Amino acid sequence: MNDDAASTPTAGDDSDHEFVVVVVEPETPGNVGTIARAMKNFGIYDLRLVNPPPLDPDGEAYGFAGHAREDVLPNATETTLEEVVEEFHTIGTTAVSHEDSTRHVRYPFKTPAEVADSLESVKTKTALVFGREGTGLDNEELGMLDEVCCIPADHRYPVLNLGQAATILMYELRRFTVGEIQLPDVERERASEAEIDVVYRFFDDLLDAIDYREHKRVKTSQMMRRLVGRAHPTEREAATLTGVLRRAAEQVRNPERFRDDD
Amino acid sequence: MNDDAASTPTAGDDSDHEFVVVVVEPETPGNVGTIARAMKNFGIYDLRLVNPPPLDPDGEAYGFAGHAREDVLPNATETTLEEVVEEFHTIGTTAVSHEDSTRHVRYPFKTPAEVADSLESVKTKTALVFGREGTGLDNEELGMLDEVCCIPADHRYPVLNLGQAATILMYELRRFTVGEIQLPDVERERASEAEIDVVYRFFDDLLDAIDYREHKRVKTSQMMRRLVGRAHPTEREAATLTGVLRRAAEQVRNPERFRDDD
Repeated sequence: MNDDAASTPTAGDDSDHEFVVVVVEPETPGNVGTIARAMKNFGIYDLRLVNPPPLDPDGEAYGFAGHAREDVLPNATETTLEEVVEEFHTIGTTAVSHEDSTRHVRYPFKTPAEVADSLESVKTKTALVFGREGTGLDNEELGMLDEVCCIPADHRYPVLNLGQAATILMYELRRFTVGEIQLPDVERERASEAEIDVVYRFFDDLLDAIDYREHKRVKTSQMMRRLVGRAHPTEREAATLTGVLRRAAEQVRNPERFRDDD
Repeated sequence: MNDDAASTPTAGDDSDHEFVVVVVEPETPGNVGTIARAMKNFGIYDLRLVNPPPLDPDGEAYGFAGHAREDVLPNATETTLEEVVEEFHTIGTTAVSHEDSTRHVRYPFKTPAEVADSLESVKTKTALVFGREGTGLDNEELGMLDEVCCIPADHRYPVLNLGQAATILMYELRRFTVGEIQLPDVERERASEAEIDVVYRFFDDLLDAIDYREHKRVKTSQMMRRLVGRAHPTEREAATLTGVLRRAAEQVRNPERFRDDD
């Protein structure tokens, strides 16, 4: 563990938000590693641990951390919940909302999606605080925090594993922490309307070539437009489809020529 | 492992959708346990495994499964990808979208949220297919599936752990699989407008009691309404606040009586 937090990479491209992850008294190093991995997956690099177990570089924490073993884990620092509360806007996560409206403490909770939406309008340094594997955060600890997040799950077994709960919350907050994702921009890769119109033109031409019943043409043409439009074809897909339709119409109109080709 | 899949509990309260989880050649029993736990958290009970490792009841699979050790894991069945493809609408998950629009195969992908939205309009039996820890699903396997889901993550390290990826996809699909969640209905627990109006009335009365400047009263009263309204107080919170305001106004008006009480 390294006490020089200043050496951690920046946490994301959103300068209005800064996130750290705090794990209070994790019992198993493997869970720390799992959380570190999810942090790197979603662009959070600053991990702070309250009373952690030893994290052996040859042990489970590093084994479960994937590439986060290169930066998140070795740069993790030790802290106390008091220090975290003083420095950050704090969001604790708990599996069950212990309280209902007839009690005072820690109500209401927010779901992960609600936490994300509520952070839209504020500029803040936020700590995502997770508790022990077995018992989570106790009521006194929850009482120190600003907000409580509960992940909605099946009432028959709502208790998520620590690492899985942390993963879901960070996934929901990715809009603040992840600058560039790994996926291509689908919108950008969609064929242009002009290219898609060519598909429709050759489809209509094929209807013409096969002497499709006049009174059904408009509806069938519309059906094709709806179907292709819904599928958001890529440029290549539109071109391929155009090619098929054009060739089919040509062969219908000039069967002899194509028969000669064989 | 038990081959009698008919004994598994029903998968959810949404009769239009039925989900199974398929894991292809998982290498470590612990990951099977982690996935089983997330399944039970999100109301999916039917786990099918392609060429799994032995799942020792005293080993990691059961150790990581939480309460899913009682049903999901012991009821898991063995299958082949061919059988799955024949029986279900299949959604594979992969960390990276191998293909771009200049190639034909397996494009476009969907994000977990897009998968959920697209399932809204169809009635289907769906298999969520996950691959090996190290290499995921290979191209031939992806080519057998109907849809490919990619979880958007930081481009610097987009590869999620198998169990974490499965958890996120099931979390996003919970609207189809989770009937009743563990969380109280916040809307239902909000105080009635009449109860909240009592808070405002006693707040205004307190302004009166403390001789609050006449020309500032309207704005301050409005401020209180906006603040409390935004907080969606519970019945108990509204009653408590009313009690405090009322008592404060009384003490301001009759200081002697309360001083006598001491």
